[in-house]
Amino acid sequence: MRGAVLYGPRDIRFVEREAPKIIEPTDAIIRMVATRVCGSDLWPYRGIEPITEPTPMGHEYCGVVEEIGGEVRNFKPGQFAVGSFFASDNTCAVCRAGYQSRCVHYQPVGAGGAQAPLLRVPLADGTLVATPGPPADDLIPSLLTTSDVLGTGWFGADAAEVGPGKTVAVVGDGAVGLCAVLAAKQMSAERIIAMSRHESRQHLARGFGATDIITERGDEGVAKIREMTDGLGAHSVIEAVGTQESMMQAIRSTRPGGHVGYVGVSHDVQLPGEELFFAEIHLLGGPAPVRRFLPELIDLVCKRMIDPGKVFDLELPLEQVAEGYRAMDERRAIKTLLWP
Amino acid sequence: MRGAVLYGPRDIRFVEREAPKIIEPTDAIIRMVATRVCGSDLWPYRGIEPITEPTPMGHEYCGVVEEIGGEVRNFKPGQFAVGSFFASDNTCAVCRAGYQSRCVHYQPVGAGGAQAPLLRVPLADGTLVATPGPPADDLIPSLLTTSDVLGTGWFGADAAEVGPGKTVAVVGDGAVGLCAVLAAKQMSAERIIAMSRHESRQHLARGFGATDIITERGDEGVAKIREMTDGLGAHSVIEAVGTQESMMQAIRSTRPGGHVGYVGVSHDVQLPGEELFFAEIHLLGGPAPVRRFLPELIDLVCKRMIDPGKVFDLELPLEQVAEGYRAMDERRAIKTLLWP
Repeated sequence: MRGAVLYGPRDIRFVEREAPKIIEPTDAIIRMVATRVCGSDLWPYRGIEPITEPTPMGHEYCGVVEEIGGEVRNFKPGQFAVGSFFASDNTCAVCRAGYQSRCVHYQPVGAGGAQAPLLRVPLADGTLVATPGPPADDLIPSLLTTSDVLGTGWFGADAAEVGPGKTVAVVGDGAVGLCAVLAAKQMSAERIIAMSRHESRQHLARGFGATDIITERGDEGVAKIREMTDGLGAHSVIEAVGTQESMMQAIRSTRPGGHVGYVGVSHDVQLPGEELFFAEIHLLGGPAPVRRFLPELIDLVCKRMIDPGKVFDLELPLEQVAEGYRAMDERRAIKTLLWP
Repeated sequence: MRGAVLYGPRDIRFVEREAPKIIEPTDAIIRMVATRVCGSDLWPYRGIEPITEPTPMGHEYCGVVEEIGGEVRNFKPGQFAVGSFFASDNTCAVCRAGYQSRCVHYQPVGAGGAQAPLLRVPLADGTLVATPGPPADDLIPSLLTTSDVLGTGWFGADAAEVGPGKTVAVVGDGAVGLCAVLAAKQMSAERIIAMSRHESRQHLARGFGATDIITERGDEGVAKIREMTDGLGAHSVIEAVGTQESMMQAIRSTRPGGHVGYVGVSHDVQLPGEELFFAEIHLLGGPAPVRRFLPELIDLVCKRMIDPGKVFDLELPLEQVAEGYRAMDERRAIKTLLWP
């Protein structure tokens, strides 16, 4: 089969690779129905996260179970399934507490490279969630988002304890930030402030439920949020970028006793202890335990109550994966969907 | 009157000062029944937090209402009352959410200097809590702890979401750490691990409810906690020191999805974003909103269900305040109580 392999900065190729096989009896092989390029794929693509050898890319997936190992109990070939980017047994104490992304047996699914027609998913029974039946074609993009970008935005909103009557701010207008807006709306936030200076993303944010848009960044953005909240700051702030500036913007936009949910993968961030101490806010973040939310999110998508697939503004055949990366790198696209 | 004034590093004097007066109609004047030296007083005493002028010291107090301003409704002269080290209106949105230490009208009570026979307490109606009646003499030390050290340890345990069935670790064996052990016991923790290498403090920790003592620090302490918790870490960790080492020890001792409550006043701490991201833990801390807990804590003390006054291992007349500081600085005493 052919799949996406990163050879170096901005050098992604669609090349012949060995097809994945069942290795452990708990594995399943998925035939990809859709995959995509993630914002986090851009870190190695841009050379900010160096790679040491040609690396298969992609960690978001949905598709049809092609083959299962001898110990897989919950799935049969032919079923449509979605899974998280981290494989988890979903039975250990950490999984049971809802933190499957830190399962004691966790493995990155992406090691196999999901930007390919076939993917090996370890710990299939714990990792995958089946749809109620074969989904309608037009639901595929939204189902694909549950695998990472929606699950991550949803975790950000959950970690920020979004709820009825609350004012929520979202730092970051990428696909995860936009999905966090959608999540905040589903969680009945009273007011949802999206921080964005791009018209197309503002438009999508409003469609997902944002009540206000702030174009200012950094300290000016913070001042604007305080102005809108009686000087106090938002109850819940979702950070979906991962830089020093965005983290400090999130922390400073939160009222004392409020919550920051941070899901942007942290790069070169140092949080000043004294400021954090006197800010007196809750912090929770990290790689999203997508598996916790998958059943609910798949249900919402299949009932057509949410349409997160709108974050894809570029669809390409998988073999044009390199153009998908380029478009996102140059910010011509928010999110690229790839059809194998 | 005479009160404690810090003139420079390790130069504390008991000198003539002007007696406090009612300034705002919401003020009360308290005649001190007991006061004490706080661990946080040692930072300026040691010159680590520089002072620019002679500074009245002390911010923990309990005593009898001597005089009230014209707008004070909840108190009368003669009542025994305890208050937090931060004055708060207890009516603003932040107070109502339980974060009185960040009240929109907050003021440090300590500005007046509580190591003196009289203290001005701003926003008396919001700040003070009266005891049901004049307390028995032997309850005074425990009542005094509710004003800061117990309230702070309690907040640490509350912020760390201590509860039934949980394993709790406490980093720091000062009076706040010891009170956090007591709080964890009251909150029905299953296992309470105190980290201490001082025999007298270990003894007190066991008396307050610690089930285990760990003498190792830093990475060795972390390894020990993981060893005791199936490799996962504690559910709840209370940090009661405020240094880089103690914060990292707390974070690394916590299982994914677990909670760190940090109440040691942060000094030169920088939290590495990437490690925090992948640790996937809840963080909450800051100056304790003692006022939130005061009614419950006063009730527990008055019903003799807890005896936090045991943290005082040195009692001195107020005029010997300098010896009180010296004994704590040299770690000859955990906590010094001062009788005016």
